[in-house]
Amino acid sequence: MSMLLNNIKSPSDVKKLNDSELELLAKEVRQTLIDTVSKTGGHLASNLGVVELTIALHKIFDSPNDQIVWDVGHQVYTHKLLTGRYEKFSTLRTKDGISGFPRPSESEHDIFYSGHSSASISAAYGLAVSKKLNNDPGYAIAVIGDGSFTGGLAYEGLNNAGRSNTRLIVILNDNEMSISENVGSIARYLAAIRTKPRYYSFMADVETSLIKLPRSGEKIYNIFNKAKTNLKNAMYQSTIFENMGFKYLGPIDGHNMNALCAALESAKSIESPVLLHINTVKGKGYNFAEKSPSQFHGISKFDIITGEPVLPCANYSSEFGKYLCELAQNDKRICAITAAMSLGTGLEEFSKKFPKQFFDVGLAEEHAVTFSGGLAKDGMIPVFAVYSTFLQRCYDQLVHDAALQGEKIVLAIDRAGFVGEDGETHQGILDVAFLNTIPKITVYSPSSFKELKACLSKAVYKDDGVVAVRYPRGCEVSLPEDYEYNDDNFSIYGDEKAKIAIATYGNVFGYACKALEILKQKGISVKILKLNKIKPIDEKAVDILMDCDSIFFFEEGIRSGGAGEALALKLLEKGFKGDFKLQAINDCFVAHASVAQLLEQYELDTNGIVKLITGSV
Amino acid sequence: MSMLLNNIKSPSDVKKLNDSELELLAKEVRQTLIDTVSKTGGHLASNLGVVELTIALHKIFDSPNDQIVWDVGHQVYTHKLLTGRYEKFSTLRTKDGISGFPRPSESEHDIFYSGHSSASISAAYGLAVSKKLNNDPGYAIAVIGDGSFTGGLAYEGLNNAGRSNTRLIVILNDNEMSISENVGSIARYLAAIRTKPRYYSFMADVETSLIKLPRSGEKIYNIFNKAKTNLKNAMYQSTIFENMGFKYLGPIDGHNMNALCAALESAKSIESPVLLHINTVKGKGYNFAEKSPSQFHGISKFDIITGEPVLPCANYSSEFGKYLCELAQNDKRICAITAAMSLGTGLEEFSKKFPKQFFDVGLAEEHAVTFSGGLAKDGMIPVFAVYSTFLQRCYDQLVHDAALQGEKIVLAIDRAGFVGEDGETHQGILDVAFLNTIPKITVYSPSSFKELKACLSKAVYKDDGVVAVRYPRGCEVSLPEDYEYNDDNFSIYGDEKAKIAIATYGNVFGYACKALEILKQKGISVKILKLNKIKPIDEKAVDILMDCDSIFFFEEGIRSGGAGEALALKLLEKGFKGDFKLQAINDCFVAHASVAQLLEQYELDTNGIVKLITGSV
Repeated sequence: MSMLLNNIKSPSDVKKLNDSELELLAKEVRQTLIDTVSKTGGHLASNLGVVELTIALHKIFDSPNDQIVWDVGHQVYTHKLLTGRYEKFSTLRTKDGISGFPRPSESEHDIFYSGHSSASISAAYGLAVSKKLNNDPGYAIAVIGDGSFTGGLAYEGLNNAGRSNTRLIVILNDNEMSISENVGSIARYLAAIRTKPRYYSFMADVETSLIKLPRSGEKIYNIFNKAKTNLKNAMYQSTIFENMGFKYLGPIDGHNMNALCAALESAKSIESPVLLHINTVKGKGYNFAEKSPSQFHGISKFDIITGEPVLPCANYSSEFGKYLCELAQNDKRICAITAAMSLGTGLEEFSKKFPKQFFDVGLAEEHAVTFSGGLAKDGMIPVFAVYSTFLQRCYDQLVHDAALQGEKIVLAIDRAGFVGEDGETHQGILDVAFLNTIPKITVYSPSSFKELKACLSKAVYKDDGVVAVRYPRGCEVSLPEDYEYNDDNFSIYGDEKAKIAIATYGNVFGYACKALEILKQKGISVKILKLNKIKPIDEKAVDILMDCDSIFFFEEGIRSGGAGEALALKLLEKGFKGDFKLQAINDCFVAHASVAQLLEQYELDTNGIVKLITGSV
Repeated sequence: MSMLLNNIKSPSDVKKLNDSELELLAKEVRQTLIDTVSKTGGHLASNLGVVELTIALHKIFDSPNDQIVWDVGHQVYTHKLLTGRYEKFSTLRTKDGISGFPRPSESEHDIFYSGHSSASISAAYGLAVSKKLNNDPGYAIAVIGDGSFTGGLAYEGLNNAGRSNTRLIVILNDNEMSISENVGSIARYLAAIRTKPRYYSFMADVETSLIKLPRSGEKIYNIFNKAKTNLKNAMYQSTIFENMGFKYLGPIDGHNMNALCAALESAKSIESPVLLHINTVKGKGYNFAEKSPSQFHGISKFDIITGEPVLPCANYSSEFGKYLCELAQNDKRICAITAAMSLGTGLEEFSKKFPKQFFDVGLAEEHAVTFSGGLAKDGMIPVFAVYSTFLQRCYDQLVHDAALQGEKIVLAIDRAGFVGEDGETHQGILDVAFLNTIPKITVYSPSSFKELKACLSKAVYKDDGVVAVRYPRGCEVSLPEDYEYNDDNFSIYGDEKAKIAIATYGNVFGYACKALEILKQKGISVKILKLNKIKPIDEKAVDILMDCDSIFFFEEGIRSGGAGEALALKLLEKGFKGDFKLQAINDCFVAHASVAQLLEQYELDTNGIVKLITGSV
């Protein structure tokens, strides 16, 4: 099996293959993708869609002299298989193994770390300009999906690159999907183009015949305008991208290797920005993925024969979705907003039950917040459900269009903390710190489903202004039976009179409780300050710590600017004279590994907590 | 003088005026704008451009039941004059006076605080959706300039609103300018539309004649395609906006009151998203402003007769620009990037001397950073010059496309700290805190022109990764003659053995030096720790403070997550047992006033420093 793939050590080996071998290679790649992802989990549908494109790219271009920038990067598995990483591919998404996203530290063929959408055109344009200034003959190529085209950054890149006369190739991989079904005007617009036949070859004909035509522009202008409606669809083919200064090639069947190679050769010959539009099928070649591309976008391990994923435990996302439905049942003001993540954030049920109050705005987090600002201003209660890592994209909108306005906007921040296998670009380790910098925002960090509901309820009905509820990816960490959530801003667990205190929040509280038991057995008496509201930190919580000898803060987030640092300042200003240690993520990005492995590595699990305290007292 | 204006107490008074009175009102408004801004400084050219539009809006619509969202908001002076603020208008941009931007706390006619571009469509769409859900008959109207159309957020808003069947009116105020000359594909595209005559009325004709036409689509299709090039310009009028689902009306002469009123009435009658394109002249009615709209975009006090502004002192922006030219003279790798702020950031000279290495990307800060990432990856040295407040817009790109990549990108952060008269939306008080949250970024904060150069030189040639140099708006604060910059990460000034320490950075250092003299006269001995590099803070600087009894940190920035908080954590973890106080901006947005007034209000000037210390020791 995989006889060809086994011999591909670098892209130069791809170039040696003939047409039928290339087709066979595509089959082998596809089988490898399905086999591997069924065992490791990962992004399957997006990768199955670009098998032929990736092979054609490495056939026609010369990576890494030519540089391919993969938008989002969840479609690079084939690229990895063809650039010397086949042998290690079974380690996909595991600690110290192959990353699921482009990773320059892994290969010279991976140009940028990526994971967030819509950035590839801007980045590739930077490469292209640099090459032009340095007379470097290499090409810069951006591969971007239609979903990513809903992000404003893609448009900014097009706008800037369009008229530049710089050699830049943008490949629009149009599968009529982003992560779930695509939304918005651009999606409909692309759908209109998709259905038009062979514009690419057709254009060549037109250009020839134009030379022969008399200058009868004015007359034709009149005829044309009078039949504008009939002609509109025909015209679609040459509008937005060409109007923005790109040469447009396409649409091409993205699973036809010969057509792809020919189109890429054409693109190569153009000395100005060119957009090559290819049509692909997300999940191509695996029935279950073709039928349910959203489900197979990012997936856990699954059974190849049945297509059934091993069902995960009840998780924070689904609990959030359920509870928001309960609230909306009795309150027509509640609106749910998502940026193309209705499945991931648990909003599928809401979207069906309350379609008028549900808004999927596309991969456009900035717009999501500003739009929420408008809804809130007029009396609605917008709840924007978003992954922590993607909330980074709307920092200014949180400042300018949310917090400053003073209206009630609820942020339901999913995947807060370690996210695990998706690596550097997806960890939710910055939200506490960057929300801390924004005036007037309130942040809750529940440690169980029950607390999630309580915090959401307060966010929706009690607090003013922007209120964030942040919760981890996945399941609950079990809490001790004698711990009871008190719906206050903080709670104390353990020996209230202890002179040693652990302070923490979120999932780490569960580990701290386990550590407390172990420390007790070692004769070390500890109390835990568990923060429910982490911004602002309740002054009473600080007061309780003032007579401690030692305080250990454990934070599953970035150290600089986090809740631990905020507490340290409060303690110091109040005159705390004891010892203080903050265990957090210190000035680094966090690579892929399981969440459990990351907690261990950053010493934020039970053992890590016990170790720091026993080593210090 | 201003006989009409004097009697306009609310928009209802505008509705009572006849055609010739409306024209007279426009004249009075214009004169008032020129007179006032010549005395107060402010945004002149943008306001002169929308006098007729604003009058027409208040004539045709019913504010505040109909809600007008002004993009950026630097064009609301006429709106303020017509909504009951004429009498107070001479207090424009002064402490406790009328703000230069929309401010809901000032009037029910101001819907959103604004100051950052490209947000109006998203916000107005939120209002529109809410009105639809609540059967509210009011209109939501966004007024947005062509410059703001280069920002991705505007596109995200269009994309989401376009096909919504929601009543939303977007008015594109096209003056062929953003702040300086407009750039990019969209600008050229709009220029093509501008020159087309009367499409609005023309369309009505076409629609009538279409009814009469036989279904000869196929034939016309062929004719059309063969003359594609000739027809392209004609087609331009109905492309992007209509393709994105908007009805398109325009272009209309934005200084013709009757045409405007008629077009607004038309827009009002449409039950789906509509884009009204109007052409205006930035600076209209004041010769000097029409000729030099960039100069009169945001301006200080000026002489009405000569149009000459009172020339400000040499400032950080111009010093930065000069020095960057010096560096580029000897290094072809240096690229300057600006987001439509070449004048404001001091890059005009650079743009002329090194046009190939200069990139104005439009109002697209996100793209600016990601594009810089591409340039850097390929060996160039990008220097992105940007106001602190606008750097907020690319937080995620700083994380994802800059810091994570590890390439050298220099951020020249202008207007860091209080900015003054432009108010809440423009203060540069968050950059230190949000940069602190991003791993691997280095931040310098010079206190003089000489230090600016030294820090820039280190940023360009010494440090790795993303390096920010942040400097204040305007002139130098004078420093003592016996203070010498040592090019180290920090310096100590004053009595090295003193047990009382002031810690600070940037402009506040100048005030701290003055405070030190006053305190000395009072018999209080103080040393000053001046940080040059504020991220990361040098451990040696912390060590020097360890034997102090009292440390006072003064920070012209947000308290939560700033340098003071970071220092507090370091001190506490090292076992500091003395007193610590942090004077900074605490959990609030900062309104408009002069920088000197703000420093006084937040007790960060000489008096404030003396007061806190004498009150504490």
